[in-house]
Amino acid sequence: MKPIGELVKQKPWLGWAMFFLTIVVVFLLGLLASSIIERRAEAVFAYTPQVQHEQWEPRNEVWGKNFPRQYESYMQTADTTFKSKYYGGSKIDMLADYPELVILWAGYPFSKDYCQGRGHYWAVEDVRVSLRPGAPMKPEDGPMPGTCWTCKSPDVPRLMNQMGIAEFYSSTLSELGPEVVNHIGCADCHDSKTMNLHITRPALVEAFQRQGKDITKATHQEMRSLVCAQCHVEYYFKGEGKYLTFPWDKGFSMENMEEYYDNIQFSDWKHSLSKTPMVKAQHPDYEVYRFGVHFDRGVSCADCHMPYRSQGGVKYTHHHIQSPLADVENTCKVCHREDTEKLVRNVYQRQDAIYQTRTLLEEVLAKAHIEAKFAWDKGANEKQMDGTLKLIRAAQWRWDYVAASHGSSFHAPLESARIIALGIEKAQEARLEISRVLAQLGYNESVPQPDISTKAKAQAYIGLDMKKLTAEKKVFIETIIPEWIKKAKEREATYPVVNM
Amino acid sequence: MKPIGELVKQKPWLGWAMFFLTIVVVFLLGLLASSIIERRAEAVFAYTPQVQHEQWEPRNEVWGKNFPRQYESYMQTADTTFKSKYYGGSKIDMLADYPELVILWAGYPFSKDYCQGRGHYWAVEDVRVSLRPGAPMKPEDGPMPGTCWTCKSPDVPRLMNQMGIAEFYSSTLSELGPEVVNHIGCADCHDSKTMNLHITRPALVEAFQRQGKDITKATHQEMRSLVCAQCHVEYYFKGEGKYLTFPWDKGFSMENMEEYYDNIQFSDWKHSLSKTPMVKAQHPDYEVYRFGVHFDRGVSCADCHMPYRSQGGVKYTHHHIQSPLADVENTCKVCHREDTEKLVRNVYQRQDAIYQTRTLLEEVLAKAHIEAKFAWDKGANEKQMDGTLKLIRAAQWRWDYVAASHGSSFHAPLESARIIALGIEKAQEARLEISRVLAQLGYNESVPQPDISTKAKAQAYIGLDMKKLTAEKKVFIETIIPEWIKKAKEREATYPVVNM
Repeated sequence: MKPIGELVKQKPWLGWAMFFLTIVVVFLLGLLASSIIERRAEAVFAYTPQVQHEQWEPRNEVWGKNFPRQYESYMQTADTTFKSKYYGGSKIDMLADYPELVILWAGYPFSKDYCQGRGHYWAVEDVRVSLRPGAPMKPEDGPMPGTCWTCKSPDVPRLMNQMGIAEFYSSTLSELGPEVVNHIGCADCHDSKTMNLHITRPALVEAFQRQGKDITKATHQEMRSLVCAQCHVEYYFKGEGKYLTFPWDKGFSMENMEEYYDNIQFSDWKHSLSKTPMVKAQHPDYEVYRFGVHFDRGVSCADCHMPYRSQGGVKYTHHHIQSPLADVENTCKVCHREDTEKLVRNVYQRQDAIYQTRTLLEEVLAKAHIEAKFAWDKGANEKQMDGTLKLIRAAQWRWDYVAASHGSSFHAPLESARIIALGIEKAQEARLEISRVLAQLGYNESVPQPDISTKAKAQAYIGLDMKKLTAEKKVFIETIIPEWIKKAKEREATYPVVNM
Repeated sequence: MKPIGELVKQKPWLGWAMFFLTIVVVFLLGLLASSIIERRAEAVFAYTPQVQHEQWEPRNEVWGKNFPRQYESYMQTADTTFKSKYYGGSKIDMLADYPELVILWAGYPFSKDYCQGRGHYWAVEDVRVSLRPGAPMKPEDGPMPGTCWTCKSPDVPRLMNQMGIAEFYSSTLSELGPEVVNHIGCADCHDSKTMNLHITRPALVEAFQRQGKDITKATHQEMRSLVCAQCHVEYYFKGEGKYLTFPWDKGFSMENMEEYYDNIQFSDWKHSLSKTPMVKAQHPDYEVYRFGVHFDRGVSCADCHMPYRSQGGVKYTHHHIQSPLADVENTCKVCHREDTEKLVRNVYQRQDAIYQTRTLLEEVLAKAHIEAKFAWDKGANEKQMDGTLKLIRAAQWRWDYVAASHGSSFHAPLESARIIALGIEKAQEARLEISRVLAQLGYNESVPQPDISTKAKAQAYIGLDMKKLTAEKKVFIETIIPEWIKKAKEREATYPVVNM
């Protein structure tokens, strides 16, 4: 090849062409550099604090001024259209869909009202309007203790710091009504100075301590599940002080927790039909997830329920906590290379398999309670019924453990199926024992089953006066709740927030 | 930098160094080329036929002369050390390990003898020595038809071609004893000319046809499962002619096949205790696998049970068909990046979950049969027992479907768990109905359970004279089997095999 100098001498246009080409390339490089600088500036700007507030600041909108992306995405938890798209309603009345539940919870507030949980945005609102805590017109009115609020609001760490933990639990729900007004949010999981994840609920820290573990040693990836495990767990209210406690001392399995409860002869209530001392499973989400393949592979709650997104120059965690099925592209498909339709189908296949056996267990459990009541009515004595009640307690614990755990049928499908199968065996064994007791009492037919085909019929059967409960609740909602909100607004107006 | 010429002028040793370096590099290149040529030659040599034989050639060692790698690896299916490592014995006596099985199969040959299947190498031998086909001393002796041999040997396509398919099925097992002598092998799955996979068993082709599908349209990857599905499936012997038939007309699910059997009121035998018309599930391996994630992701049987290996210049399919756990590096780890220990643990976790509920179902099913017999003995009539027998039939079908399917608890753990849970519900419901019948007959206690804690005790309970059966079998093994082998050797000596 000839040197460039010689070529240009022969063809002068070549020199000019190279000159202009250089200009164009340099100009494009300038544009690129400008874009990079701009995006960096945006990223820096995004983390420049706009306000200064305390760790105990409960208002999400105040924290949100510094973290608009996280706040805006978090506020989307108000949206219920995903559920309505798949399930035909923004608020799913579980008792209407499965009237057997009314029977299973007879004598316990869940038989009055149980709607499927909505997004975190609704946490406080849904407690206020539910029939479960009743209509406590005065601060000292029961039946619910302050413990009920523990998982509902970033006002809780503020109050625990102010009142003391034990004092918080042993107050009443209505006493704290004007105090707990902000729905689950920023201060529940974040340190206000470093924005690091941190644990604000003592029950988790204490459960770890009793297991001989130090939760402050958890990795960041573990914390991305543990902040959720502050609330999405099995728990009970311990003793007179209603001290919130996780039954994890023997381990995380269904059997471990059953052993824990049986050893301390704990029961949440006495069933009003079968007279069984029952345990209500809460929502052992974290525990069940530990038995699934995603936990085994190191995937955290946040990986699927709060995926990373990019906006401008900023990568951030999308705080619209929801089913990963609403955003398969950013969740499942980070690891799985299958097409969206197939991945969604795979989830539904797992859920359908559990749904079939779970509803079957619901049906036989309802029969067991009804047949036990029939035996009592025929004159059965405690000695005759003892074995039966133990079986019913164990069977319903197995059912509730799976049914109450959000997402159990996907988080750990096989563990869920195993537990349901064990529950079916025990519920049916209970019915077999009842039939022998009935035979001894001279009754040898199948037990007549009441009509519990609708929520209203089932509630009437267990003796609930729903008209009265609803009327009382209406008064409460119209008179007490506005008072609570008014008091809270006045209090919050005094909080120290410095604009930067 | 100076030109090389100048450098060499200044430092003459540099020229010599480069000269020798060149010699060394060229020599190494020569070695590499030689190795490549040699490996290609080896590859070509590997596929140079040594012998010519017919498609109906049943002897694996004849085919093996042309395909030594495949043949040698296939012959490793004789090895049972992997099983003995994990299960403590080369031949696992299922009736000794689970005496309830004797009760479940009362009145059916499986109650006499049931060892876990060994490798393909043992296919013919294990039929000969099993107590199930009895001791047929004459060719016309029953009880088993020729159909029983269908999956055991490459002599079968030869015989079907020679005798006709229906004639093969309607002969007796003992009539074909001297004909079926080569264990499952080459001719069962391969075309002798092209070595392509092909289907030799008519039942699979016919089942596809009845489903409106053409099996000749299957892809190579599908064929890598379908050749296995010739035998590893649910089937029954249809009508007087004992025509081998797959009950797939309504689909591949447990429910689909149950509907098929119920519609034609099929039963394999009448249970000798409960008098239930039973269906024996065979081994619905292919069907259950279709409900698992590996099928969903397009993984074939051969991918995990016959992984690719490399030897010399040749990549070949390792024909030592076995549990992938015996060779995780070449099976699971082709796709999964987890460490071997974790992958093995993941498999055992799935198996353990199913094992727990499956053995529970075994126990309640055994009780159901025993209690039903008790009710018959107390004078129950057919009308009273009708519902119970339907429940027992359905429950045991569910149990057997999972228990009999090789690897079901790994192939489709959730589907297996679902089916077991449904079985538990039905078995327990049967027991509940029996208790009501017993109450009507004036009996209101729990039914006394016989001691079935060992295989011998369970077999005595159902009235089997094991001494007699074993003695008869001993005579058969010592006199008839040597005759069969002698006849077969004489016949095979006449087969046309041309050395190349």
